[in-house]
Amino acid sequence: MIDLYTASAPNGYKISIALEEFGLLYKVKRVNISEGEQFKPEFLALNPNAKIPVIVDNETGQTVFESCAILLYLAEKTGKFMPKSVRGRWEVIQWLFFQAASIGPMLGQLGHFMRYAPEQIPYAIERYSKEAHRLFGILEERLEDRDFICSEYSIVDMAHFGWLYFAVKMGATDAEKYPRLITWHDRIISRPAVVTGLTVPEPSNFR
Amino acid sequence: MIDLYTASAPNGYKISIALEEFGLLYKVKRVNISEGEQFKPEFLALNPNAKIPVIVDNETGQTVFESCAILLYLAEKTGKFMPKSVRGRWEVIQWLFFQAASIGPMLGQLGHFMRYAPEQIPYAIERYSKEAHRLFGILEERLEDRDFICSEYSIVDMAHFGWLYFAVKMGATDAEKYPRLITWHDRIISRPAVVTGLTVPEPSNFR
Ligand SMILES: N[C@@H](CCC(=O)N[C@@H](CS)C(=O)NCC(=O)O)C(=O)O
Ligand SMILES: N[C@@H](CCC(=O)N[C@@H](CS)C(=O)NCC(=O)O)C(=O)O
Repeated sequence: MIDLYTASAPNGYKISIALEEFGLLYKVKRVNISEGEQFKPEFLALNPNAKIPVIVDNETGQTVFESCAILLYLAEKTGKFMPKSVRGRWEVIQWLFFQAASIGPMLGQLGHFMRYAPEQIPYAIERYSKEAHRLFGILEERLEDRDFICSEYSIVDMAHFGWLYFAVKMGATDAEKYPRLITWHDRIISRPAVVTGLTVPEPSNFR
Repeated sequence: MIDLYTASAPNGYKISIALEEFGLLYKVKRVNISEGEQFKPEFLALNPNAKIPVIVDNETGQTVFESCAILLYLAEKTGKFMPKSVRGRWEVIQWLFFQAASIGPMLGQLGHFMRYAPEQIPYAIERYSKEAHRLFGILEERLEDRDFICSEYSIVDMAHFGWLYFAVKMGATDAEKYPRLITWHDRIISRPAVVTGLTVPEPSNFR
């Protein structure tokens, strides 16, 4: 049994989706990040960076924070959603770090300046919007001859989907400019495990 | 022999330092990022994200981009600077992702708004300066009972040093608030491999 500390947020969905895909039993521990529960000492003991998601694998006693580290941990634990070849594995690891270092933080900054900042700062909105489109363009090109970001459906798609789900929902990725990215998004969201993962955490999903 | 595509920049230093620490033979391929060489088709074929560093391992034919993916690759190749225990390995992987997702992009944004943005935007400077100090605080606390970020000197220290080297140089980390972080910085920079790594790329270091 795995404990999943999460909230309804892009980085949390990556892991609820993954746990559903891997078919692992897990217990949801909702962390109310709008009320600052991530700063409670019990939570900081799990992740000093005060962010969800975190897992505790009760089988091994291992705690893992950082969503992409968790994805890698689960892939190694189960041997699933990670290519078997050496080259395929390094491809996945590179694109995981690309997601962690670029897509995640940059879409995060765009969201902040568009919706949460107390003042509208055109320079900042343009900066992050341009960067978001640069990143979408990289994925669009990548999908030219692939159905998934790496050679097969893998933890890399789960990592990217966490954020792209929101980008598509908010209309940031228009279908004319990013047809392949939209098709990829639709391909992912049609998976039953993804549909279920997106409902976590809801009290009804505690198990 | 490893080809290292790099520039004098935080993410580049991580890898020149690592290659020196690992004692691997490498050939420096300088990429002039201020003149846009990262957008040349030959470079985009190595990293579609148009960023240094990239390595090509000529022994295996493997190309790796994303500095923290490269560090992991080199650690697995050589069996060095990575704890042998399962728990130690996952600790390193988590902190590598922490570096990639937080320290790197957030100090990058702070640098942009402080030095490169055409206008001074107090809100943005304050936002990233606050976040930088939050992150320094996490490392300061982490170093309370450790000499290195994980249990022993590892690729995690190399990853963090790339950015902290600049932060310390620019006086962002004052010694009263961050005594342990400064001591850690001084401990790392006193290593001969680090001193050499910081001189790459310079024409005199091509080999
Ligand atoms: N790089 C981290 C980012 C995690 C993150 O930013 N989590 C957000 C929710 S999506 C959070 O916990 N925010 C609460 C806060 O920043 O205080 C990861 O991938 O796990
Ligand atoms: N997450 C990437 C970031 C790489 C990065 O930002 N590299 C900078 C130099 S430190 C670069 O190549 N900048 C050129 C550009 O952005 O056009 C990594 O860790 O490798």
